[in-house]
Amino acid sequence: MSGVKIVTIGGGSSYTPELIEGFINRYDILPVREIWLVDIEEGREKVEIITALAKRMIKKAGLPIVVKMSLDRREALPGADFVTTQIRVGQLPAREIDESIPLSHGILGQETNGAGGMFNGFRAIPVLLEIAADIAELCPKAWMINFSNPAGMVTEACIRYGATKRMIGLCNVPFNIEMQIAKLLEVEKSRIWVKFAGLNHMSYGVEIFLDGEDVTDQVIQKFNEVEMEGMKNINSINYEPEFIRALGVIPSFYHSYYYKKDKQLNQELEEFKEGKIRSQVVQKLEKELFELYKDETLDIKPAQLEERGGAYYSDAACNLIASIYNDTRDIQTVIVKNEGAIAGIDKDSAVEISAIITKDGPIPLTIGELPIAVNGLIQHMKSFERLTVEAAIEGDVEKAILALTINPLTPSDTIAKEVVVEMIAAQKEWLPNFYK
Amino acid sequence: MSGVKIVTIGGGSSYTPELIEGFINRYDILPVREIWLVDIEEGREKVEIITALAKRMIKKAGLPIVVKMSLDRREALPGADFVTTQIRVGQLPAREIDESIPLSHGILGQETNGAGGMFNGFRAIPVLLEIAADIAELCPKAWMINFSNPAGMVTEACIRYGATKRMIGLCNVPFNIEMQIAKLLEVEKSRIWVKFAGLNHMSYGVEIFLDGEDVTDQVIQKFNEVEMEGMKNINSINYEPEFIRALGVIPSFYHSYYYKKDKQLNQELEEFKEGKIRSQVVQKLEKELFELYKDETLDIKPAQLEERGGAYYSDAACNLIASIYNDTRDIQTVIVKNEGAIAGIDKDSAVEISAIITKDGPIPLTIGELPIAVNGLIQHMKSFERLTVEAAIEGDVEKAILALTINPLTPSDTIAKEVVVEMIAAQKEWLPNFYK
Amino acid sequence: MSGVKIVTIGGGSSYTPELIEGFINRYDILPVREIWLVDIEEGREKVEIITALAKRMIKKAGLPIVVKMSLDRREALPGADFVTTQIRVGQLPAREIDESIPLSHGILGQETNGAGGMFNGFRAIPVLLEIAADIAELCPKAWMINFSNPAGMVTEACIRYGATKRMIGLCNVPFNIEMQIAKLLEVEKSRIWVKFAGLNHMSYGVEIFLDGEDVTDQVIQKFNEVEMEGMKNINSINYEPEFIRALGVIPSFYHSYYYKKDKQLNQELEEFKEGKIRSQVVQKLEKELFELYKDETLDIKPAQLEERGGAYYSDAACNLIASIYNDTRDIQTVIVKNEGAIAGIDKDSAVEISAIITKDGPIPLTIGELPIAVNGLIQHMKSFERLTVEAAIEGDVEKAILALTINPLTPSDTIAKEVVVEMIAAQKEWLPNFYK
Amino acid sequence: MSGVKIVTIGGGSSYTPELIEGFINRYDILPVREIWLVDIEEGREKVEIITALAKRMIKKAGLPIVVKMSLDRREALPGADFVTTQIRVGQLPAREIDESIPLSHGILGQETNGAGGMFNGFRAIPVLLEIAADIAELCPKAWMINFSNPAGMVTEACIRYGATKRMIGLCNVPFNIEMQIAKLLEVEKSRIWVKFAGLNHMSYGVEIFLDGEDVTDQVIQKFNEVEMEGMKNINSINYEPEFIRALGVIPSFYHSYYYKKDKQLNQELEEFKEGKIRSQVVQKLEKELFELYKDETLDIKPAQLEERGGAYYSDAACNLIASIYNDTRDIQTVIVKNEGAIAGIDKDSAVEISAIITKDGPIPLTIGELPIAVNGLIQHMKSFERLTVEAAIEGDVEKAILALTINPLTPSDTIAKEVVVEMIAAQKEWLPNFYK
Repeated sequence: MSGVKIVTIGGGSSYTPELIEGFINRYDILPVREIWLVDIEEGREKVEIITALAKRMIKKAGLPIVVKMSLDRREALPGADFVTTQIRVGQLPAREIDESIPLSHGILGQETNGAGGMFNGFRAIPVLLEIAADIAELCPKAWMINFSNPAGMVTEACIRYGATKRMIGLCNVPFNIEMQIAKLLEVEKSRIWVKFAGLNHMSYGVEIFLDGEDVTDQVIQKFNEVEMEGMKNINSINYEPEFIRALGVIPSFYHSYYYKKDKQLNQELEEFKEGKIRSQVVQKLEKELFELYKDETLDIKPAQLEERGGAYYSDAACNLIASIYNDTRDIQTVIVKNEGAIAGIDKDSAVEISAIITKDGPIPLTIGELPIAVNGLIQHMKSFERLTVEAAIEGDVEKAILALTINPLTPSDTIAKEVVVEMIAAQKEWLPNFYK
Repeated sequence: MSGVKIVTIGGGSSYTPELIEGFINRYDILPVREIWLVDIEEGREKVEIITALAKRMIKKAGLPIVVKMSLDRREALPGADFVTTQIRVGQLPAREIDESIPLSHGILGQETNGAGGMFNGFRAIPVLLEIAADIAELCPKAWMINFSNPAGMVTEACIRYGATKRMIGLCNVPFNIEMQIAKLLEVEKSRIWVKFAGLNHMSYGVEIFLDGEDVTDQVIQKFNEVEMEGMKNINSINYEPEFIRALGVIPSFYHSYYYKKDKQLNQELEEFKEGKIRSQVVQKLEKELFELYKDETLDIKPAQLEERGGAYYSDAACNLIASIYNDTRDIQTVIVKNEGAIAGIDKDSAVEISAIITKDGPIPLTIGELPIAVNGLIQHMKSFERLTVEAAIEGDVEKAILALTINPLTPSDTIAKEVVVEMIAAQKEWLPNFYK
Repeated sequence: MSGVKIVTIGGGSSYTPELIEGFINRYDILPVREIWLVDIEEGREKVEIITALAKRMIKKAGLPIVVKMSLDRREALPGADFVTTQIRVGQLPAREIDESIPLSHGILGQETNGAGGMFNGFRAIPVLLEIAADIAELCPKAWMINFSNPAGMVTEACIRYGATKRMIGLCNVPFNIEMQIAKLLEVEKSRIWVKFAGLNHMSYGVEIFLDGEDVTDQVIQKFNEVEMEGMKNINSINYEPEFIRALGVIPSFYHSYYYKKDKQLNQELEEFKEGKIRSQVVQKLEKELFELYKDETLDIKPAQLEERGGAYYSDAACNLIASIYNDTRDIQTVIVKNEGAIAGIDKDSAVEISAIITKDGPIPLTIGELPIAVNGLIQHMKSFERLTVEAAIEGDVEKAILALTINPLTPSDTIAKEVVVEMIAAQKEWLPNFYK
Repeated sequence: MSGVKIVTIGGGSSYTPELIEGFINRYDILPVREIWLVDIEEGREKVEIITALAKRMIKKAGLPIVVKMSLDRREALPGADFVTTQIRVGQLPAREIDESIPLSHGILGQETNGAGGMFNGFRAIPVLLEIAADIAELCPKAWMINFSNPAGMVTEACIRYGATKRMIGLCNVPFNIEMQIAKLLEVEKSRIWVKFAGLNHMSYGVEIFLDGEDVTDQVIQKFNEVEMEGMKNINSINYEPEFIRALGVIPSFYHSYYYKKDKQLNQELEEFKEGKIRSQVVQKLEKELFELYKDETLDIKPAQLEERGGAYYSDAACNLIASIYNDTRDIQTVIVKNEGAIAGIDKDSAVEISAIITKDGPIPLTIGELPIAVNGLIQHMKSFERLTVEAAIEGDVEKAILALTINPLTPSDTIAKEVVVEMIAAQKEWLPNFYK
C-alpha cells in the first residue's frame, strides 16, 4: 500500500496538534496515508478531542490523510511504518509527586533530572518495553521513535532490553540549541550545523560549523557575551566566561543543573515554598489548551501551544521520519546505541549524538574522545542512567537507592533512601515492578 | 656498595620517626646503609631535630645505619636506591588557606578533596616534577616513592610528565582499610587481602579474601552492622545498609565526602564557624611533637605521633620498599599507571590498585570493568584530577576554574571562579607557574 | 580570489588527463581557477607534454581554467586549496625491482602488497612527509589528497607523523567495487551505497544498500553466482560460495592475495618465468600513451588511458574535492584517522572507511566491531603497515626485516631477510633514510 | 573431609603416571586424599593398567592416597576439588586423520595448528563443554583444569560457553620455555621468571627477569647465539638474529609454524611422503609404554615416558593445583579470560598469560599493549580460534570453511573447502554436531 502509516502512542497528548501540523507541512516529502492516535482508557476524552482536531486540521489542509483513534495499540500497530511514543505514565499527578517529594527533602525536583527523572523512568520504562515488544511482533519493520521523557534512560532501556532493534530516541533540545546558535550568529539555521555528543539532556555541541567552516571559538565568544535564552521550560543560564572558554564546547540547557547546582536548586525550593510547581503550571496550561482544542471551529494548531514548552518537537520528529523515509542521509541529532562513536562510553549504551539518517536508520558520526572536562560528568550520569534502568526493570529498591545516591545532585545516601522509599509508596499504582 | 641508600625528601616532617622505626624493624630484610634526610632551608630547624632523633633511635637499635642531613637534594641523590617524597609545599600556613578560603565560600575545605586538594596539588606538582627530573639525572635506577598529598594528582602528574619512569604513589588508606576489615572479621591482617581498584582517596575494596576465600558479602554484611571507625583524621561514617548492599563493594574513608556531601560539609562549616580548622589542630600537634623530639633522651618513636594521623604510612612505605628490594612479588596497593588494568580509565592515567611488587616495580592486577555504580564517580574525579594537573603545569587560571567547576562537590562555576581567584592571590608565593 | 586552486604533485603522471577531464566535467559545482602541474626535473618532459594536453583540453571545453607547470612545488603551493599527490618515487624502474626481486625469491611481487608494497612505501613515505611539511608551511588551509601508492601506508605515515592535519588518502578500489555491485544488481550506481570498513586494499563492503534498503545478503548471493570482473590490473577472482556466505561481507579485489595466496603467487611466478612483469607492460603502455598525448590535435582524454588501470581515480578524486568545496556531507570512502570508528584498531591509525565529506574534512561513520573473520587479517596487515612506516622513517633495516617477516604472505624470516637486504641495495638511490 | 580429591578425566592417558608422580612429590604441600581416574569404555584397558600402576606407585611412596577408577565421570565428580581433563577424542586414529588429510592437500598437518588443530578442536570442544556442565552440577566449587589440546580453543570455548566459571587452561610450553631460558642463562629456573602474553601455542615471553632484574635484551642476545632446543615434539628453530632483535620478545616453539612456514611445511611434507607421521610414532611409543606399565614390578614412572613429549605437564599442573590449594599467589602462566589484561583482545576471550594464582583462581597481570609486531598475528589467530569454536558448537560447515580459509597457513579458500569437506566425512563418528 502506498503512503506512510504513523501510529502515535500517547496520541492524547496536548503536543499532538504540533505533530499533525508537521505531517501536513511535509506532505510533499512524506506522504502520510494514515495516522493512528492511540491512548489508554484514562486518556479517552483527551484523545477524542485531539482526534477530532486532527481531522479538522487535515481537512482544512485538503490532504487525503486518514486519522484514526484507538484505545488498543495492538489494533493500531499492524502495518505501521513509524510508531511515535509520547507517553507520560501517571500523567501530571505523577509528575507532581516527582517534583514535590524531592523538594520537600530539599533536593531537586525536576522531571528529567535527579529523583524526579528517576521515577519518571521507573514508570515509563516497563511500559515502553512492552510497546517495543508489540512492535517487534506486530510491525517488525516499523521504526519506534520515542519522545517520552526521560528520553535518555528510556532509550538506554529499549536499546539494551527492547525487542525491536529499530528504536530511536529523540529530544528537541539539540534542535533548540541549533536554533539559538543560529540566532547568536544572526544567520539562517540551515547555514549552521552542530556536532553534538553526550547523553540526552547532557549532550554538548562539540563543534559548530557555519557554511561548513568551524566557528566553535567564535560561538563560544558570543555565547559569553550574549545570554542564551534557554527554552521556555528551563531557566536562563549565565555561565562564567572563563569556565566556558576553558570548557571549549557548548553545554546544553540542562547542564545548568550541574554547573549551577545551587542557583537551580534554590530557585526551585523558593518556588516550592511559594507553592509554585511546574506540574501545576503545566496542568493549568493543558486544561486551557484542551478547552481550545474542543472548539469545533479550530482547524489549525493554536498559537498558545507554543507556551507549553517542547518547542520544535514536531520539527525534530517529522524531520527524522522524513529522512528515514527518503533515505536522505542528512545529519540529525538522535539518541542511539553508541557502538564506539564516543570513546569511553560502553558500546551498548545510548548516547545523544549527531548521526546521518538513512532508510536503514541512523549511523552515528565518529566522535572519538570527549574533552576531559566533559567525559567525567557524562560517565557519572551514564552510571546513574544504567542503574536506574536496571532498578526499573528489576523493581529493586536497593538499587534505586544506590542509583539516587550516586547521582551527583544528591546530598547523601540517607536522603536518597528517604526519597526513594517515600516515592515508591506514593507512586505505587504506576510501579508494578516494585510491587511484584 | 652493599646495603640500601634511602633519601627522604621532606625529611623534616613530623612523620619521619615512624619511617625510621620502620627501617629499624625491617633491618633483617631491608639492610639500609644510609638514610639521607633532605629538607629546604625553611625547614632547617625541624630536619635538624629529626636527624638527631633518628640517630639516637638507630643507635639504640644498635644498627650500622648512617643518617645524614642535607638542605640540597642534589647532594643527597647520587647513589640512592629509593627516594621517598613527603613534602608539603607552603607547610601548614598554606594548608590553612586551603581549608579556610573554600569554607568561607561555603564549600568544602579539605586538603585532599575539592578546592583544598586542588591547590595542594597546584603547589606540590611543579616541585615533585623537579624532584623527578633530578632523580632521572642523578640516580636513574632509584625508585621515587611519593606520599605527598594529594597523592593521586601528584602521581598522575609524575606518571604523565615526570622524567623518571620509576615513580610510585603511595597512600596509607588502603592499608588502614585492610586493618579495619581484619578487625571487623576478628582475624589477623595477614589472613586477609583486599583487591583495591579506583583512584587515590577514591578506591574501593572490590573483593575481600579471608584465607583465600571470597568473603566480600560477609564483610558488607558486617560493615553494615558495625560502624567502621574511620581513620583518626576522618569523621566516622555510617552508610545506609541498602546503599552499601547494592553497591556491593567497600568504599574508602574519603568516599563520605561524596556519598554524604551534606553531613561532611555541614560539620566542617560548623567547626569553621567555631574557629576550628584542622590545620590549626595539626599545627599545635606538630609543635608538641617537635618539643618531644628535641628531648635528647628520647630514642624511640614517641607514642604521641600516632595521634597525628597518617597511621601505617611507615608500614605501607617500608613494606613497599622491602618488597621491591627483595623481589617479593606479594600484593600491595599502590598508585601506578593504569595500563588497561581498570577498563574505561585512560591507560596512561594513575590508578590506586592492587599490584604485585617486583624488583622491577609494581605490576597491577587485571581488574576489568568496575561496577557501574562506581565507574561514574571515578571517571568524574579522574577528569577533575587530569584538569588539575594540566592547570598546575600550565599555570592556567581558566583551566583551574574549569577543574573546580566540574568537581562534583562544587555548587557552581561562579563560586569556583571566586574561590580560585582568591586562592591564587592568597598563595601567590607558592604558585610560580600561575605568575609567569 | 574566487575559484579553486589545485596543485597536482606528480603532474607528469599519465593519469593526469583523467583528472583534468574530471575538473572540466564538474566545473559547474567546482569552479577551478588554476591547476598547477608539478613534477621533478627527471619528469620534465612528461609534465610538459601533459601540461600542453591539459591546456588543449580546457581550451576545447571553453573554460577559464589556467594551467601552469612547475618543477618546484614550493613555487606552486602558496594559495592552493587542494594539493593532490600522485607520485611514484623511482618511477617504473623502481617498480620493476619491486616486482622482480621478490619473485626471484619465490614470493609475491606486487607493488602494493608484500615486499613490493613495502619498498614502494619506503620510497614514497619520506617524500610525502616532506610535501606535507611544505603544505603546512605554505598553504596550511589546503587539503592534501594522496593517491600515491601504497595509499594505506602513506596515509598511516602522514596521519601519524605529517605536518598537516588536513590530509586524506584516496583509492579507486571502493568506487570500483560500488560500480561492480551496481552492475551485479543491474541498477544505476546512484541507487546503491556500500558501507566500507577496513584498510586500504583491504577494506570490506560490510553492508550494501539499494534505495536505502539493506541488500547485503542478496549481493552475496549474486556475488557467488556471477564472477566479479576485478579491475583491469587485478586477476579475476572466483571465491568459494561457502566461504563468502560465511564471511557475510564483500571482500576487496586485493583480498585475493590473502584468500587465494597460491593462485595469485603461482600466476605471478609463471608470468615472471615467461619474462612478463606488470611494470614492463605498464612501461610500454605509458610510452604509447605519451606518444598519443604529444599529438597536438588531441584535446580530449584518449580512450586508451582506460586500459592503463586506475579506472575512476579521477571520479573518486574530483568527487571528494567537490564535496569538500561544497560542504556536501555525502558519503564517500576515504582513508583517514580511525578515531574509534572501527573498534579494535588504534584510534590514531589510518583506516579506509565510509565517511561523510564536509568542508571541514571527512567524518568517519561509526562502524563498531568488525566481523570476527575480518578483524584478524586486518589487524595483521595493520601491524605490517605500522612497522613498515616506522622502518621507512627510521631507516631501520632490522625493522624492515621484521615487518616483512610478519607479513602473512612471507614464507620465512630468512627469505624476508634476503629480500630486504637485496632490495635495499638495489634501490639505494631512492632510500636515503636507510643510508644515513 | 580433609585432604584433596582429584578427578582426572582421560585417566587412561600414557601421561598419567607423570601426574601421579607429581602428586606424590608434592604430598607435603598438597595432601591428596583420593585420585579418581576416569575414562570411557573404549579406554577401559588402558585406564585399568594406569590405575594399577598408580596404586603401586603410591604404595611404594608410602602415602595414604586412595586411587579409584571409573568409566562414569558422574560417579567420580561429586566432592571433587580439582578436575583435570586430558582427553583426546578419537584417540590416535583421529589424530592420524588430522595429520594426513591436510598433508595430502599440501597443507600443514599438525594437531594443534591449522586444519589438524581445528578438527582436534571440533572433536574436543563439545565433550569438554559437557564435562564443564557436569562439574557445574555435581561439584560446583571444583576447579576444572584442562590440558587437552588444542588448549587455546578449548579454553576459549569453555570460558565463553561453559557452565562452570572455575575453568583454567594449561599448557606445558611456557614452563618449558622458562626451563630453556634458565639453561641459556646458566642459572636455576627458580631465579628467573618470564612475563608471558598471547594465546596458547602463540604466547611470547615479553619480559624476562633474573633475580628480579630485567634481562630481556641479554636473553635475546643469547637466544640468537645459541640455538634453542625446542621441545621433543617440535623441530628445533633457528631464527634470523635481525628478526629476533627487532621483535624484541621471545617467541614460543610453535611460532616457527608462522615465522618459518616454508621450512616447517616442507619438512612435514617430506616425512609424509616417506610415510612418517607423528601420530604413528606416538602410537608406537604408546604401545611400548603400556607394555612397560603392565609390568607388575614397575612402581615408579618409567624413564621412557619422557620421550613421549609433554615434558613438565605434570609440574605445570601440580604447581597450579598446589598454588590454588595453598593460596600461594605466585606467578604462573595459564590460559584464562583476558578481562582487559592484554589491550586489543576481546575481554571475554581466552589468553595465555602470566597470572598470580590465588585460592579464588588466577588473576592475570596487566600487560597493556602488545608490541605492534606481535599484535597482528595474535589477533589473526584469535579470529581463527573464535570462528573454530563457533563452528564446533554450531556444527556449521560453512563457518568451518571460513575459519580454515582465514588461517594464515592456508593457501586458499578452495583448499580450505576441500580439506574441511574431506575431514568432516572422515571424522564423522566424532563430530556429532556436524551431523545433527
